[in-house]
Amino acid sequence: MTSPSTGRVARIVCAQLSPVIADLAENERLIRDAVARGIEDGADILVLPELATSGYVFASQEEARSVAITTGHQVFTEVSRLLAGRDTVVVFGFCELGERGRLFNSVAVVTGEGVRGVYRKTHLWDRETLVFTPGDTAPPVVGTPFGRIGVLICYDLEFAEMPRMLALAGADVLAVPTNWPLSEYPAGERAAEIIYAQAAARSNGVFVACCDRAGAERGQDWTEGTVIIDQYGWVLDDAGEAGTAVADVFLHLARDKTISPHNDLHGDRRSDIYPQEPPRL
Amino acid sequence: MTSPSTGRVARIVCAQLSPVIADLAENERLIRDAVARGIEDGADILVLPELATSGYVFASQEEARSVAITTGHQVFTEVSRLLAGRDTVVVFGFCELGERGRLFNSVAVVTGEGVRGVYRKTHLWDRETLVFTPGDTAPPVVGTPFGRIGVLICYDLEFAEMPRMLALAGADVLAVPTNWPLSEYPAGERAAEIIYAQAAARSNGVFVACCDRAGAERGQDWTEGTVIIDQYGWVLDDAGEAGTAVADVFLHLARDKTISPHNDLHGDRRSDIYPQEPPRL
Repeated sequence: MTSPSTGRVARIVCAQLSPVIADLAENERLIRDAVARGIEDGADILVLPELATSGYVFASQEEARSVAITTGHQVFTEVSRLLAGRDTVVVFGFCELGERGRLFNSVAVVTGEGVRGVYRKTHLWDRETLVFTPGDTAPPVVGTPFGRIGVLICYDLEFAEMPRMLALAGADVLAVPTNWPLSEYPAGERAAEIIYAQAAARSNGVFVACCDRAGAERGQDWTEGTVIIDQYGWVLDDAGEAGTAVADVFLHLARDKTISPHNDLHGDRRSDIYPQEPPRL
Repeated sequence: MTSPSTGRVARIVCAQLSPVIADLAENERLIRDAVARGIEDGADILVLPELATSGYVFASQEEARSVAITTGHQVFTEVSRLLAGRDTVVVFGFCELGERGRLFNSVAVVTGEGVRGVYRKTHLWDRETLVFTPGDTAPPVVGTPFGRIGVLICYDLEFAEMPRMLALAGADVLAVPTNWPLSEYPAGERAAEIIYAQAAARSNGVFVACCDRAGAERGQDWTEGTVIIDQYGWVLDDAGEAGTAVADVFLHLARDKTISPHNDLHGDRRSDIYPQEPPRL
């Protein structure tokens, strides 16, 4: 389905997997299966969880190191091969072995042509700081036939500067692999992480696709908060019982930042004000 | 009630008034009554709506000008006199007559000692742009016996840069007079403006007190979305049927930005990343 004024429709699919801690072979299988299923379901953009290759609750840095990989690893080749001849884009988290033996909590953007981009999480959560080196490079915006995909990872999204910089750089949708540890929240409210995602979407006029993970790992329950959010901040779909969120969207709609006859989400920014020091009275 | 470790408790009251368009005398009366009632109710920080002195839906700039005032106007003297001998702080919106005849959508912070600070709205919404000059100065942080109050006005809050700059400058609570025009939102969701307020509170670890207005004006309905939000982003109270939100809080709690053994809301900011240009792949 295409519309000349808005571009090509994109089916976003978020598959809320349950990776197995430190079992690279099993997680490769889970990822391959999710990609094959995504293709069957007509996914144009498929988002999988953070650290999908490795699991999250490492007992030690050594354990993480035992399943750390580079983008030369076969999981990338295999995913790319499944995508060959298609426009489908897959975004998934992996435990990256970097230069000088450092470990990164990374996400790869993979197409039929190979690994299009890698982003290393810059805001590390809690005990991740004991395992990973924080990235020191801005997240990328990856051009695709459906629109431009900005990449963030989990806790990154809680810093409004991050969605803002991606949206200002032209991202139409933020793909956000996450592992959201479950914490209590008041009845009738959405999980706090989803509130952040809604605010990020609406304040920037971009779509947001967060893929959380399912189940529990070493006693850690997950929020299972997978959501696809429109450019107004409203939830189009969540993972529900099926564990998969699906939405068909025109990502080009994110390029119109007009929100009233006199307002533009980005044009209204006051870059002259933000660097000022507030007067203390 | 005091606690040595957390300071003095503050009762925040938001009184969701219904100002009368272009009727300064009547709005003075409404404001005086609200302040008197707030004092009776034990308010330490009383927040009233945006443009409380004037109403909002002006037919023309001339109509706004007919009720524009300076901080020399008696409404400030009267409010201050009501507060004499107390620590109570009142935050309310007024239509300000500025230098060279310019009009500003402003908020005053008033105590028993007079007008402590004025902030001129920097992000103007829709037809406000036809009436008001946008402010060109950062919002202030006002020190009080209860804690430090940062001031924003309505649409300002939708730019995450604004709560961020106030929180980084030490604000414990954001007082946000608003006039939120009602727009539809999905069942089960909070109004979008409240989602912004929740995200602003939680991402900065500050309290947020938004005072909306009630009723309708020249066919414009209001969201009546008045809320007091804690430093985790959860709603402590809303205006409900009574039209008044009340919460007793220790504002000093906002000074602890620790959110895990390894995380600090402000310390985790990556000021080295945010100015970078995202790679476009």
